[in-house]
Amino acid sequence: MPEETNSQSLQSSLVTAAILAIGDELLSGRTKDKNIGHLAELLTLAGIDLKEVRIVSDEEQAIIEALNTLRSRYDYVFTSGGIGPTHDDITADAVSKAFGVACVHDPDAMQLLGEMYKRREMEFTEARQRMARMPEGSRHIPNPVSTAPGFIIGNVYVMAGVPQVFQAMVDNVLPLLRTGAKMLSRALPCPYGEGDIGTLLAGVQKAHPQTSIGSYPKYDGQRFSTEIVVRARDQQALDAAAEAVIDMIAAIDATRVQPNPTAEA
Amino acid sequence: MPEETNSQSLQSSLVTAAILAIGDELLSGRTKDKNIGHLAELLTLAGIDLKEVRIVSDEEQAIIEALNTLRSRYDYVFTSGGIGPTHDDITADAVSKAFGVACVHDPDAMQLLGEMYKRREMEFTEARQRMARMPEGSRHIPNPVSTAPGFIIGNVYVMAGVPQVFQAMVDNVLPLLRTGAKMLSRALPCPYGEGDIGTLLAGVQKAHPQTSIGSYPKYDGQRFSTEIVVRARDQQALDAAAEAVIDMIAAIDATRVQPNPTAEA
Repeated sequence: MPEETNSQSLQSSLVTAAILAIGDELLSGRTKDKNIGHLAELLTLAGIDLKEVRIVSDEEQAIIEALNTLRSRYDYVFTSGGIGPTHDDITADAVSKAFGVACVHDPDAMQLLGEMYKRREMEFTEARQRMARMPEGSRHIPNPVSTAPGFIIGNVYVMAGVPQVFQAMVDNVLPLLRTGAKMLSRALPCPYGEGDIGTLLAGVQKAHPQTSIGSYPKYDGQRFSTEIVVRARDQQALDAAAEAVIDMIAAIDATRVQPNPTAEA
Repeated sequence: MPEETNSQSLQSSLVTAAILAIGDELLSGRTKDKNIGHLAELLTLAGIDLKEVRIVSDEEQAIIEALNTLRSRYDYVFTSGGIGPTHDDITADAVSKAFGVACVHDPDAMQLLGEMYKRREMEFTEARQRMARMPEGSRHIPNPVSTAPGFIIGNVYVMAGVPQVFQAMVDNVLPLLRTGAKMLSRALPCPYGEGDIGTLLAGVQKAHPQTSIGSYPKYDGQRFSTEIVVRARDQQALDAAAEAVIDMIAAIDATRVQPNPTAEA
């Protein structure tokens, strides 16, 4: 889709975000990421525009560089991964360096974890104490699954990579965020492939500049169909463009002899 | 994991890559990406190090900026998405601008597509002709699924976003690539959480600098366990580190009373 073409008054209420997923296991293909799609969907529902995603390895310089670029460019940055207790968990150090502050054993996190391990009669090992490390002055992101908190510094929200923990942290983070005008959307199934509709659909987009019309090809192994998605922050603009798309599909229907239209479903 | 610590002779045979996935539907969460994990796995098997992934929207400047950064930094860049026939498919234009060359209707692609639509008694519409557009001088990536080719320019491989088509294009691309020394790996299941093993595992990593040891927490809703993955380009180094990890787990076993060890599985 082309860049959102909303009116100026709506532009001012846009809130933008990026995701930075950290971990060699994502780049080796060993782990298939589940966090990006999950958070992307929730941000969209909340009216926050996810503008960019990056996946980098567990290398300090790679994390620092990506984080500093993203946090200067977008309202929010959400990271996943690298805050566990092992030697390859270096996110807290990298984030601290990116912000130019010390990475410390946070006193509140030390107490929280110390009490939890005491209750469970487990040793609060040096490795486990690593999970209390964060940039000095960070706020916690509560972790109802496994206690060790994520943290917030500036506009950066640092969360765990394990999906169950990531999702629980996201649930605790979303209510804290400034949200923009919600993007409304309407998905319209279209039995024709993109080659059949491309020219006409470009005309519909041009006639409805306040909306953003995307078309997503589907392939069932035999033939292509399309899902057309109209998005806008204004309900009237959305409805008008959606009507135009529906008319367009009807116009193509009328030019076709469909031997068995029900087979289209 | 820390940066690979292989010997200098192995460093010279490293081949690096990045993936650039393009599409608003990925950033809105509407589509959950399947291409990144698929290609990541195949690159690893081929001995190519995937170093970075970016997902950007269907905005020309975002695509150009990400592409120019990635193609200057890594040996190969693979893109997915935005080469269909509709107005929101702008990848060919953006890649052309990134390389500073004209975006043209490639004559061979026009012929290929023209003949295909003629055979299928379908009109070769203006929208469908868009799929023949690519930077002047590109080579084709054959598309056995739906004919419209991907393309190669410089070190950039431009492929479709629909997973079936993307995967077929990847199969045609992989044999063309220079591959590096294969990364060998061994995964070792560990019944203990990262907090139990963290300190010891850091010691194993330190004692085996030619390897890269990652630990990946798993959470089954009740308790954490770990998958420890040892990676190296040298078989002997791999075996030695893997033995050390196995010894480490056995040493922890010996300190524990396990009332019902079979329940660990």
